[in-house]
Amino acid sequence: MAKRRTQDQMPEQVAGNGLLHRRYILQGGAALAGAAAALGTGAAQAQSIGANSPPWMLKQGAPFSAYGVPSHWRTNITRIVGQNPPPGREGAGSSRTPIQMLEGTITPAGLHYERHHNGVPDIDPDKHELMIHGMVRQPLVFNLNSLLRYPLETRVHFVECAGNSGGIAGAMEPQQANAGVLHGLLSCSEWTGVKLSVLLQEAGLDPKATWIVAEGADPVGMSRSFPVWKANDDAMIALYQNGEPIRPEQGFPMRVLLPGFQGNTNVKWVRRLKVLDSPMHTRDETSRYSELMPDGKARQFMLQFEPKSVILKPSFGMTMSGPGTYEISGLAWSGAGRVRRVDVSADGGKTWAQAALTGPVQPKALTRFRLPWMWDGQAATLVSRTTDEKGLVQPARAQWLAQYAPRQNFHYNAMQAWGVAADGKVSHVYV
Amino acid sequence: MAKRRTQDQMPEQVAGNGLLHRRYILQGGAALAGAAAALGTGAAQAQSIGANSPPWMLKQGAPFSAYGVPSHWRTNITRIVGQNPPPGREGAGSSRTPIQMLEGTITPAGLHYERHHNGVPDIDPDKHELMIHGMVRQPLVFNLNSLLRYPLETRVHFVECAGNSGGIAGAMEPQQANAGVLHGLLSCSEWTGVKLSVLLQEAGLDPKATWIVAEGADPVGMSRSFPVWKANDDAMIALYQNGEPIRPEQGFPMRVLLPGFQGNTNVKWVRRLKVLDSPMHTRDETSRYSELMPDGKARQFMLQFEPKSVILKPSFGMTMSGPGTYEISGLAWSGAGRVRRVDVSADGGKTWAQAALTGPVQPKALTRFRLPWMWDGQAATLVSRTTDEKGLVQPARAQWLAQYAPRQNFHYNAMQAWGVAADGKVSHVYV
Repeated sequence: MAKRRTQDQMPEQVAGNGLLHRRYILQGGAALAGAAAALGTGAAQAQSIGANSPPWMLKQGAPFSAYGVPSHWRTNITRIVGQNPPPGREGAGSSRTPIQMLEGTITPAGLHYERHHNGVPDIDPDKHELMIHGMVRQPLVFNLNSLLRYPLETRVHFVECAGNSGGIAGAMEPQQANAGVLHGLLSCSEWTGVKLSVLLQEAGLDPKATWIVAEGADPVGMSRSFPVWKANDDAMIALYQNGEPIRPEQGFPMRVLLPGFQGNTNVKWVRRLKVLDSPMHTRDETSRYSELMPDGKARQFMLQFEPKSVILKPSFGMTMSGPGTYEISGLAWSGAGRVRRVDVSADGGKTWAQAALTGPVQPKALTRFRLPWMWDGQAATLVSRTTDEKGLVQPARAQWLAQYAPRQNFHYNAMQAWGVAADGKVSHVYV
Repeated sequence: MAKRRTQDQMPEQVAGNGLLHRRYILQGGAALAGAAAALGTGAAQAQSIGANSPPWMLKQGAPFSAYGVPSHWRTNITRIVGQNPPPGREGAGSSRTPIQMLEGTITPAGLHYERHHNGVPDIDPDKHELMIHGMVRQPLVFNLNSLLRYPLETRVHFVECAGNSGGIAGAMEPQQANAGVLHGLLSCSEWTGVKLSVLLQEAGLDPKATWIVAEGADPVGMSRSFPVWKANDDAMIALYQNGEPIRPEQGFPMRVLLPGFQGNTNVKWVRRLKVLDSPMHTRDETSRYSELMPDGKARQFMLQFEPKSVILKPSFGMTMSGPGTYEISGLAWSGAGRVRRVDVSADGGKTWAQAALTGPVQPKALTRFRLPWMWDGQAATLVSRTTDEKGLVQPARAQWLAQYAPRQNFHYNAMQAWGVAADGKVSHVYV
């Protein structure tokens, strides 16, 4: 049914290989989409409830439910869980968000990625305590009820694992896997909690204090250090996620949230915050999560993410259904603040067009970009590149690799490219 | 453990009965919260993992899961479902969002309120079609795949039933029920879909067209009319909710979204949009959802919601745990645009203080307001009042009632008051 269009009907392009301005679709060029089926007027009017009701209109529907779940037609949309863990290690590893199957910017809590070091503890919220101690005037202990007496904040932020996309860093050949497998240690939620600065102020920070180590109440006591400046900036003790109490896999009943900082510094199930005058150098920050540099030294405590983006529509595993107009869309983010712009290329980076940022553009939050594309049925290479409000720009792959020693794979944020073949198949390519 | 505070230590109030400025808590006055337990330094340091680990740190945690669910400690947070429907009518009625148990602004999809006229249809998304016909140049039929070729929009909007809070309108005495029971036909999601204007443009609107009737694919073919100006303004055919495909109870695979318009005009499971030069006067808009006026005439098609708010913390069913500092918080919204301000009174409306709007303040979206309150342990009456960006102000109850004939109970948006007794119990009161 799709309408085809010859080259001389082609609207003005904003960059090579068919990238169009969004206004061509939103204002007057709608027919470009060419996706609707046209009906004769008679045929349309013949379709009436009586004549043509689909089967689901002919029987009573399902009753009300206490807590809804996704459609059974969509139960294929799940977290990507690693198979066959070694016995006794079922809770060590990660599961990924199927970002290529989602839309908008919020990740449903049920699909938020997981990274656990020994599983999800089953914490009785009435017995859980958070202690603030170390270099403070007055050590304090809080529980869930006492925290709820304090002023709360609500903000949307992404959480990303420092190892996200790391498989790409070391692979000579592009791994043929979908965007969730490659980049799905990434999720975004509306978080509500208490500003950490308020609690630290009540405990009374020693002026010499510079670091804080947070410890989780999971069976490994996962512990990470972060600087006091971050605690006093936008850190929170998060209690709610997307409106409801934080989920067990994300730290029920409370977690540290350090917006824009690498995932595991956002310590889940947090039970102790010890204020120090140096980092603690815990096992979790020395055995992992440090970057090996070209000179053989390891860089520690590079905590904040730099700008990054990934095109999700289209992406690996999808097949274009013939030449015509499509929407290119994806996610962009930065640990330093708001996304300022996203540029998209359909010719592997030779020419670029600025995408529209649709929906909320919030600091340290996933941001959705979109741009229409008239695919001519020839091979094409799609790439996206984010610039954040600090002026930081997402690097090319070669540029990213040059910063580190071989096989260093944390904080990979290079541009992601997808190849579209003449048969419509989308593959992972390097540019 | 909570610290008490005598009157002469009381910080400056911003309105009567103990309303404080938020900066007292966020800057320097944190100890006011007085909720933390102080520990001797020795005691704090004695708490170490080895000595004092809670039981959940002593055994392996739960493994990864494909689709997460809330903590089993919080399975009491459910939709409020009516009990014992008549046989054969299990799908007619509503369930409500437990708004008093939630935080932030987003409603988890599993807790989004439901209003069905004959249950939730089980629609095969590959066989569902949306037809646009009537006063158009070219009738068109879309399916899910063809809609996904169009540019998508992502926006956060509330959906509210026209009958929400309606029980209060007709009740001489305030019903002693929680905020979810009273006001829970109200939810807010991040919606992603296709602008309806784009589809109508492709079909080619007859210049004489003024109304559109939308029909759902539920077993009653629920149908509502709405004006063409709204279709061309911010209406969308929503396909995704909070990042994932829209849930069955909210219209899977597609629904009309008319931001700020009464709930059932946002036709779920939409299968036909017929363009007309007048409203259709369907059963669903004549037998219900019209307002009886004092002169005995019924007003039809008052579709847009006016400003409204409700304090949720504290609210009916909660008990204050003794004099001290608390955060008052709640939700505010307007069908006309952004919330501009929310004022809160602790003395039943004699004096007012402006609350902070924390988190995203988006048009036609739930907005969270917060204000600290030093409760002195005496009886108090809490009220909130929203003003939106158009300058519309939420009315007092008497003012709202005066607009209509007795027992008219749609679009109730009067100020909600809660009484706090000296024993800390919170009740529903009229002011």
